[in-house]
Amino acid sequence: MRSVTKDNITEVFAAYFGDDTDPRTRELLIALAQHVHDFCRETNLTHDEWRKGLEFLEWAGRITSPERNEFVLLSDVLGMSSLVDMQHSVDGATSSSVLGPFHVSNPPPLAVGGDMKRDFEGEVLLVEGTVRDMDGNPIPHAKIDIWQTAPNGMYSSQDPDQDLHSFHGLMTADADGRYAFTTVRPVSYTVPDDGPVGEILRAAGRHPWRPSHLHYIVSSPGYRTLVTEVFPDDDPYLDQDTVFGVRDDLVMHYVPQPAGSFPDGFALSGQVTEAYSRVDFDLVLAPEET
Amino acid sequence: MRSVTKDNITEVFAAYFGDDTDPRTRELLIALAQHVHDFCRETNLTHDEWRKGLEFLEWAGRITSPERNEFVLLSDVLGMSSLVDMQHSVDGATSSSVLGPFHVSNPPPLAVGGDMKRDFEGEVLLVEGTVRDMDGNPIPHAKIDIWQTAPNGMYSSQDPDQDLHSFHGLMTADADGRYAFTTVRPVSYTVPDDGPVGEILRAAGRHPWRPSHLHYIVSSPGYRTLVTEVFPDDDPYLDQDTVFGVRDDLVMHYVPQPAGSFPDGFALSGQVTEAYSRVDFDLVLAPEET
Ligand SMILES: [Cu+2]
Ligand SMILES: [Fe+3]
Ligand SMILES: [Fe+3]
Repeated sequence: MRSVTKDNITEVFAAYFGDDTDPRTRELLIALAQHVHDFCRETNLTHDEWRKGLEFLEWAGRITSPERNEFVLLSDVLGMSSLVDMQHSVDGATSSSVLGPFHVSNPPPLAVGGDMKRDFEGEVLLVEGTVRDMDGNPIPHAKIDIWQTAPNGMYSSQDPDQDLHSFHGLMTADADGRYAFTTVRPVSYTVPDDGPVGEILRAAGRHPWRPSHLHYIVSSPGYRTLVTEVFPDDDPYLDQDTVFGVRDDLVMHYVPQPAGSFPDGFALSGQVTEAYSRVDFDLVLAPEET
Repeated sequence: MRSVTKDNITEVFAAYFGDDTDPRTRELLIALAQHVHDFCRETNLTHDEWRKGLEFLEWAGRITSPERNEFVLLSDVLGMSSLVDMQHSVDGATSSSVLGPFHVSNPPPLAVGGDMKRDFEGEVLLVEGTVRDMDGNPIPHAKIDIWQTAPNGMYSSQDPDQDLHSFHGLMTADADGRYAFTTVRPVSYTVPDDGPVGEILRAAGRHPWRPSHLHYIVSSPGYRTLVTEVFPDDDPYLDQDTVFGVRDDLVMHYVPQPAGSFPDGFALSGQVTEAYSRVDFDLVLAPEET
């Protein structure tokens, strides 16, 4: 179309499509153009602002590496990652939440009742629960991939003082769907804010903090894989997670337990004499989409 | 906000803003989040699609270099660059059009009546016109930065066989606002399509062609700088410029002239005996914003 105008450019964009293009690709690209165009029109975006936006993307490209993905982080702080999570969550199942960049591909096995705390400082946290279907029935032998920060706020991949597998574990729930382990309470931490995403956070007057959380990926044949997190209900950043990951059903009370009450059946049984905390977090899986 | 949902996430995003943030930054970031969120909701974007989009941005980052900016190209083929141009064009002035990536920062001087064709193959094209204000009065001594492809479809920076300054020139219009030069007709060319933008074009069933054009940047104290292009009215890609750069008032008839009629007053006068073409293209500048 020769007479492209600011009012018809979205239609012109749509008219450029070939006839036998994939309908979903077409839908996504036209919706993308529509929202990009509407954004420009609504804000009357200037050349300088446009250039600045492109420079941000270039900067994000330059600092993205196999260890750090600034585009994922951008999606996270804009709430896009959480929104995609939420719109594919199933009512009645545990809410999903952001995966984040710190999952490792080959976590070490962790037995039911096993320990991830090892020699790290801090109070013992006992985490346990049952993997269930949406009718409340236990799902036996689900795989649960678990990871968290060390007490210093760093994941093993960020921290030269931890071995790569510390605070990562892959558990197989038992025949009754039960999982359980000991660890130390993960701490609140900041997302990397020395790149363009940090600039955005500062420009918005926002902090880079996430509340304390344990990450889970739960999978079992016949069920949707659940990527989620659990948060303690006393974290100061719970109401302003910078990546929008908190959902009501993922906030749990970590219950203080008196000294001398540590139960049997754990790798640490007989070794924990002081006070500890305990959190119960059931994982409810939705059936696989058919 | 603890209870982030897919319906309230845009409000939660807005509520995260600090009090003393720049109002325009706030407006832009909230509008960005709103349109990103609406895009995700409207398309019910899946995790796989989200991941694929992020991989496209990572790929664009990897192939962006000082010589090639895939983010600008993405903006171009989405129509975003043209839309920003159009919404800052002024009615009654010459339309602006895309800058593109091939401008050089130190073009060689080109006298009024000078030549850019040199020894290149092809019919001579005589380009002339007057720089005017919106009341039709000539603007004396405006600076006109001109660049185009060689007949092989390449800009000098892309082509090891051209020197860096070939088909680039910086002219100062005369006291009557007149500019004029000889060249060879630039050719239609394709934008780089071996990266993620090329994938998008192929997925959309679109070609990567731009119609033939001459680029101009026109500036004079007291006026808005004009970035524009002129297109011949017989180009096959005029109705489907892949970067949406064509505007009605930028399409001109390149008028064939008989052999023996080449005028005086040009560097090539006395040397052009064969037929040539002539295009008249006035450049109308809007007053500077105050
Ligand atoms: Cu929108
Ligand atoms: Fe995390
Ligand atoms: Fe060009």
